[in-house]
Amino acid sequence: MTKPFVVGVDAGATSTRVAVHALDGTRLGYGTAGPGNPSAHGLAKASAAIGDALDLALTGVDAAQVRGSLAGVAGQADALHESLSAIWSRHGIPQAPTLIGDVPIAFAAGSSAPDGSLLLSGTGAVAARIAGRELDALADGLGWLLGDHGSGFWIGRAGAKAAVHCLDRGQPAGLLVELVVTHFLGEQEWPSDRAKVDRIVRLAQADHMRLAAVSRLVCQAAEAGDAMAASIVEEAADHLVATVGRVHHSGPIVLAGSVLTSEGPVRRSVLDRLAGTEVSTARDGAGAAAWLAALRLDPDAPHEAFTSG
Amino acid sequence: MTKPFVVGVDAGATSTRVAVHALDGTRLGYGTAGPGNPSAHGLAKASAAIGDALDLALTGVDAAQVRGSLAGVAGQADALHESLSAIWSRHGIPQAPTLIGDVPIAFAAGSSAPDGSLLLSGTGAVAARIAGRELDALADGLGWLLGDHGSGFWIGRAGAKAAVHCLDRGQPAGLLVELVVTHFLGEQEWPSDRAKVDRIVRLAQADHMRLAAVSRLVCQAAEAGDAMAASIVEEAADHLVATVGRVHHSGPIVLAGSVLTSEGPVRRSVLDRLAGTEVSTARDGAGAAAWLAALRLDPDAPHEAFTSG
Repeated sequence: MTKPFVVGVDAGATSTRVAVHALDGTRLGYGTAGPGNPSAHGLAKASAAIGDALDLALTGVDAAQVRGSLAGVAGQADALHESLSAIWSRHGIPQAPTLIGDVPIAFAAGSSAPDGSLLLSGTGAVAARIAGRELDALADGLGWLLGDHGSGFWIGRAGAKAAVHCLDRGQPAGLLVELVVTHFLGEQEWPSDRAKVDRIVRLAQADHMRLAAVSRLVCQAAEAGDAMAASIVEEAADHLVATVGRVHHSGPIVLAGSVLTSEGPVRRSVLDRLAGTEVSTARDGAGAAAWLAALRLDPDAPHEAFTSG
Repeated sequence: MTKPFVVGVDAGATSTRVAVHALDGTRLGYGTAGPGNPSAHGLAKASAAIGDALDLALTGVDAAQVRGSLAGVAGQADALHESLSAIWSRHGIPQAPTLIGDVPIAFAAGSSAPDGSLLLSGTGAVAARIAGRELDALADGLGWLLGDHGSGFWIGRAGAKAAVHCLDRGQPAGLLVELVVTHFLGEQEWPSDRAKVDRIVRLAQADHMRLAAVSRLVCQAAEAGDAMAASIVEEAADHLVATVGRVHHSGPIVLAGSVLTSEGPVRRSVLDRLAGTEVSTARDGAGAAAWLAALRLDPDAPHEAFTSG
C-alpha cells in the first residue's frame, strides 16, 4: 500500500510556499514562488505563483499519492477554486485542494491548539480569534491608510513623520532623523532643512509603501537608544497588544509577520506586555497548511514535524 | 495720459484667477480657469490655465495700459517665467509678470500689513511668517501622508478612521459613523460590519484624496453634537493654532483655505483659540496679487478696493 501524502499551500502577499509531507510529518518537497494573494495581485498571477511553487514542491514526488491538500489564501480565496482545481488535476493530484483563509494557517504555524489568537504584524497588522481552528473574530487589519496600528508600515510612517517634523521644527536631529534622511536622500547636500523635508515628503508620497522599509530604521535607532524611535516602538507594541486584547479569549497567542517573528524591540516589547499568557511564534505556513490537511486523515499528525521545516 | 493698469494672478491647485485693476482699485476685468499649480499639474497645464484666465480678464481692456503684473504660484514658480513672459507678450502687455510664491499673496488677500502670519487649511495645511510682504518661515505643509495637521484631508481621514474603528470594535454608531458609511456605501445592505469596513477601507485606499471630502461630514456631525466629530474638530483646531504659533511673531494672522474661510466649527474653534490676536480672513487672491503689483507703482494703492471684489 502506498503512503498517503498531503500538500499545504501558504499563498501570501510577498511569496507563495507549497510543502508536501507524509502523514508522519516527513517533508518530501517544498517550493516557493512570487506573491500569491489574489486580492492584491489578481487571480491569474496568484494562480500562476501557486502553480509554480506546487511544481517545485512535487519534484520527485508521486502526485498520485497525495490524499489531501489545503491552501491558505488571503482575501477572496473562493475565486481561486476553479483555477487551482485545474492546476491540481494537471499535476495528477486526485482531489482538488480545500481553500481556507490565511489566518487559521498562520495560527497553526505557531500552535497545534484548536483555540487561541493570532497577532500578526508585517506590512499590515491584524489580530484574530481562532475557535476550532477557524477564524472567529478579527480586530484591526484596516489597511495602511486608516488602520494597521503597530504594523511595519505604521512604524515606518511614524518614523518618517517624526523625522520630518523634527526638521520642520528645527529641533536637534537624533539617530532616527539621520537614518531617515540618509534613507531617502543619501549623502547629498541640501540648501536647507526645509528643502530636505520637502524632498522626503515628495518621495514618500510618490510611493507611500516604501515607508514600510523605514520600520527597520526605527528598530535600529531604538536599539541604539534613540528616544524618539523607542517611543514609536512602545506605541506600536501598545497598539498590537490592545488589538489582540480585543479578540483574545483563551488558549495561546501566536505571533506572526516579520515585525513580530524577527528578534527586535517590537517583538521584545510585545512579549513583555504578554508575560503570563502562553505565546508562541509562527513558523512555516506551508507546513502548517499541510499539517491541517493531514489532521483530516490522521488526528495524531505531529504538529512539530510539519511546521519546523 | 492713459491710466495705468495692473494684473494679478493667483494660480492655485484648484483654480486659477486673474484680476485686472486700475491703481485706484477699480476692477476692470476678472477671469478664472482650471488648476494652475505647475508642481501638481505640470508646466504646460499651469501655463495654459493662466493664459486662459488672463484672456478672459483682459476682455475689453487695453493691454498696453498694463504697467505691472504679479503672479502668485505654488511650488516651482521660477519654471513658469519663460512661458508666462511669452503669454504676456502675446497679449500685448509691455512687461513680463513678476513671479512670487502663493503664500505672500494669500496673506495679502487678508491684510495690508507688511508683517504677520498666514494660517491656511484647505486640502493641506501650512502656516507662514510674512516679513516685509515676503515669506520668512514655514511650519507644517508636510503633505497628506506625513503632515498637514488640521487640513481638510487630515480631518476627513480622522473621520473615516474613527468610523471604521468604531465599526471594527462593534461600538454603537453615532451620526459621524452613519454619515461616513453612507458617503462611501450609499444605502446598500451589507452582510456584516466587517464587510462594510473592508469595503470602505478598500475605497479609501484606492483614492485616498477622496478622504478630504469627508471633512465636510465631520463638520456636519460636530455641528449636530456628535462627540466623536467634535473631538476631531477640536484636535484639528489645536494642531492649526500650534502650527501658526511656531512661526507667528507679530502683526495680524490671516486665515486662508476653505476649512478656515468657511463658516463652521473648525473656523470657530480656531478663532476662539486666537482671541486677543488680530485675525482676518483671506479674500480674493488675484485682487491681492494686483494690489501687490499696484503698490510698486503707488504706495497708497487701496487694499480694500483691490481685495473685496
